[in-house]
Amino acid sequence: MARRSFWAWGNASDEPTAEQMKKAAEELAARYKVSLKPVSPPKSSVLSLRKPRITPPSALADICVSDDHDRAVHTYGRSFRDRIRAFNIDFPNPPDVIARPRNEREVEAVLEWCSTSGYAAIPFGGGSSTVAGFEPPEEYDGIVTIDLEGLNQVLEIDAVSRSARIQGGIYGPALESQLRLHGFTMRHYPQSFEFSTLGGWIATRSGGHYATNQTHIDDMVESVRMVTPAGIWESRRLPGSGAGPSPDRIAIGSEGILGIITEAWMRIQARPVFRASAGVTFPTFAAGAEAARHVVQTKLWPGNCRLLDSVEAAAAAGMDGTKSLLLLGFESAEIPQGEFIQHAVKIARDLGGSISDGDIKVSDGSGGRSQGETGRQGAVGAWRDSFLNAPYVKNHQAGLGFVTETMETAVTWDRWPELDREVRAALQESLDRVCGGGTVSCRFTHVYTDGPAPYFTFEGMGRLGAELEMYAEIKQAASDAILASGGTITHHHAVGRLHRPWYDQQRPDLFAQSLKVVKRTLDPNGVLNPGLLIDA
Amino acid sequence: MARRSFWAWGNASDEPTAEQMKKAAEELAARYKVSLKPVSPPKSSVLSLRKPRITPPSALADICVSDDHDRAVHTYGRSFRDRIRAFNIDFPNPPDVIARPRNEREVEAVLEWCSTSGYAAIPFGGGSSTVAGFEPPEEYDGIVTIDLEGLNQVLEIDAVSRSARIQGGIYGPALESQLRLHGFTMRHYPQSFEFSTLGGWIATRSGGHYATNQTHIDDMVESVRMVTPAGIWESRRLPGSGAGPSPDRIAIGSEGILGIITEAWMRIQARPVFRASAGVTFPTFAAGAEAARHVVQTKLWPGNCRLLDSVEAAAAAGMDGTKSLLLLGFESAEIPQGEFIQHAVKIARDLGGSISDGDIKVSDGSGGRSQGETGRQGAVGAWRDSFLNAPYVKNHQAGLGFVTETMETAVTWDRWPELDREVRAALQESLDRVCGGGTVSCRFTHVYTDGPAPYFTFEGMGRLGAELEMYAEIKQAASDAILASGGTITHHHAVGRLHRPWYDQQRPDLFAQSLKVVKRTLDPNGVLNPGLLIDA
Repeated sequence: MARRSFWAWGNASDEPTAEQMKKAAEELAARYKVSLKPVSPPKSSVLSLRKPRITPPSALADICVSDDHDRAVHTYGRSFRDRIRAFNIDFPNPPDVIARPRNEREVEAVLEWCSTSGYAAIPFGGGSSTVAGFEPPEEYDGIVTIDLEGLNQVLEIDAVSRSARIQGGIYGPALESQLRLHGFTMRHYPQSFEFSTLGGWIATRSGGHYATNQTHIDDMVESVRMVTPAGIWESRRLPGSGAGPSPDRIAIGSEGILGIITEAWMRIQARPVFRASAGVTFPTFAAGAEAARHVVQTKLWPGNCRLLDSVEAAAAAGMDGTKSLLLLGFESAEIPQGEFIQHAVKIARDLGGSISDGDIKVSDGSGGRSQGETGRQGAVGAWRDSFLNAPYVKNHQAGLGFVTETMETAVTWDRWPELDREVRAALQESLDRVCGGGTVSCRFTHVYTDGPAPYFTFEGMGRLGAELEMYAEIKQAASDAILASGGTITHHHAVGRLHRPWYDQQRPDLFAQSLKVVKRTLDPNGVLNPGLLIDA
Repeated sequence: MARRSFWAWGNASDEPTAEQMKKAAEELAARYKVSLKPVSPPKSSVLSLRKPRITPPSALADICVSDDHDRAVHTYGRSFRDRIRAFNIDFPNPPDVIARPRNEREVEAVLEWCSTSGYAAIPFGGGSSTVAGFEPPEEYDGIVTIDLEGLNQVLEIDAVSRSARIQGGIYGPALESQLRLHGFTMRHYPQSFEFSTLGGWIATRSGGHYATNQTHIDDMVESVRMVTPAGIWESRRLPGSGAGPSPDRIAIGSEGILGIITEAWMRIQARPVFRASAGVTFPTFAAGAEAARHVVQTKLWPGNCRLLDSVEAAAAAGMDGTKSLLLLGFESAEIPQGEFIQHAVKIARDLGGSISDGDIKVSDGSGGRSQGETGRQGAVGAWRDSFLNAPYVKNHQAGLGFVTETMETAVTWDRWPELDREVRAALQESLDRVCGGGTVSCRFTHVYTDGPAPYFTFEGMGRLGAELEMYAEIKQAASDAILASGGTITHHHAVGRLHRPWYDQQRPDLFAQSLKVVKRTLDPNGVLNPGLLIDA
């Protein structure tokens, strides 16, 4: 594996240069009319972490390391809070040991060591959590982070059933390139794709890039194999079943508290050939939302049905800042998609959307790169590039006091206008109070027949050294507004340590009690990712 | 409510006449070349059940009854075993009391009475279980069956989100007629539709009539409200969420062991206007299966994609007995479906299917009844009528020693040929051994990208008085074959008491242990539907 940056999104080679950081400082200074002093990115060499408090047994020594850089990489995810703390070399509670099992037997051995010793055992996928999903707990004498990157193979392909048996530690790009050898794809592209793993997606109920229908990883799981301190949990491979509550649905979303997902049979598909896309503009976000609602309620199931408000449409798709943009896309391996996009565009136009016929792009995959790239041109293509690049841009903005983050939820359509109003108000009001102003924007990442998944982005210029407190105040206000307006505290970023206070308000109490006894059954010594989802 | 038959499918008024039973006897005698003595249907008046062993507290007296007919109706479901036992007036272990709470408070009161007294509390929906889902357990001193027919209202409609809050005890027809007043439909039509309830569908993971995509009730649930002995379990209304494991997915499929589902928010939709259908014939079942697989793997998501083997195509759709029949159907409230069916038919033809262009029926709903009935004509319509009528036909065949039942499963496509071969062989071999011959047939009720849900029907002429043992031997052989071939013991009929031995083999042991501790948490005295899914 390439050496990961201990603070920035991506690898060490993705860390910004002093020149890039200077440019970002100039841009933000101009935008916020302040003077900003550019900083240099921190170097690994200045890391000086708490000495490891425990030593692995000799049988595990080969797969364990405790060097500072590696432990720093495994301390924080990639949220705003994480980036600031890591940039500031603020690592009071790093893991003591990073274990890298090479097979399931070694996963069991590491878990057994932790379980018998009472050390916290923290499953680690790609490290891109934005919710402190693998941040070590305070109250343990030993912390072992179990990095599953060694379990990185597609083990078996069942071409006729379009399923594959895949190891949990495989990263997105490796998964797709191994499937591509057989002509298949899983087509699950969360924004974290480069730095997240199959096991991580399953443990956090990842949301893919499809905007409608089967897009959550939940729907792609055919069976799960999980190592728990109490033994192996493995469900039968089945396309569907009505035999009792689904065992998989307990593993899916369990955030590492019940076991370590070592393998799963996943539904895969043929690679798309036929594509169609359109970017339809609307005078208001609400008008675009009506169109998105009608498109999804017709059950045309577009692969893309993302709505950007005027701020996001300007920033990400080069629009003029007065209009909302609804991105529509269809794809298929077998069937031309021209007529599907025409249906969707007609719905959008009937509800006040504008697009010229020439901007409806349709491709049968035969026209080489320019045709094959439908969905990668114009406003649609601009948005796509911006989406993929967004996490890297944030690297450049560290160390300036800048406060920015995203928040996501889902809510039924009837409550969406209130949620949109209340969350924007909470964000703007707290940005004004805390930062003296700032920007709020929103898009829909996914739409369901019964509601959208709104994704908010906020930014303001804070004070260097006070960013974390400023961020916490804004996050609190907006999260309270999400809960009060009927939303979920997370649609696809997971709960982690960050969202626990709101998660505790939204799940049924009896469900929490149930999860607690399930955990006690599977993890009797309470070592797996303690503090996530429930208190032991 | 109309008075239910205590032995036959349907109401007392649906019981066959002596003339109908005579005709059925003649038909079966001719088919099996045996001589059969027609019998008369049993009368309620001969019922003489064990005296009720318990008396409800006075506060509940108004909603409790203990008359023999009512207790007989609540003893058995509507499987073959149930019909034979009821027809033979064989009721050794009926419930002692039937409680009919009129509201949630009364559900709580009944549960509290059972919980504090240690009586078995058995939730009862529409009474059409085919897996002994509400059959009383032996080892209890008191059995209270809680019939939820009083909770029969659509309480609230959210038209913009296309969701409705609906009480758990509502029957299919009432649910649809109340939704129709608002222009909506849920479009969930299990074969038991007339005699099953929303709460029953959720508790048993009912499969609807849609053959692809979102058809299991699981996908239509937005939130669940459940009364448990430990209190109320209610999830937040959400179109999607990534906040921990889904609480709903524990309630869905819980078969009454965790709580009583009093309400749910369900996803609803506009009533279909545009329809298209086609019945494509294939020379073999395997060829039709390839077509069904390709249609579902293209993700066209037809509402109907049922494949009948040559036996079923002859019996249910009037075909000549040499060909398989693939029933394709599309529907939409907003979008003409002609082009969708053309795509599906093209796939089917490319794989060896035959249909004349004139037999592809397309309707925009504007042509009055004849047009609007697309999907109700020709082979497609014949199959539909046969499907709806099937449970009633069995009423006529009771009391003759005839052994017949259906069995259903789901399996990945790669293992389907083996499962088809092995289950047919197990059925035929055991029918030959037990009944001296018989008939086996199969259809696909649902198809997924990764596998079909095959539905087997078998029949043979047994010996009057020995039918239950003969049936048990056949069921055992075929169920063993399903498990050995990688299938699930049930795709949509649920586990019940009937499928426990095979369910116990297929679910992860650690899941059973988990479910056990969840039950202990929600139902500390172990009174809810004891013996289902797990042992206390």
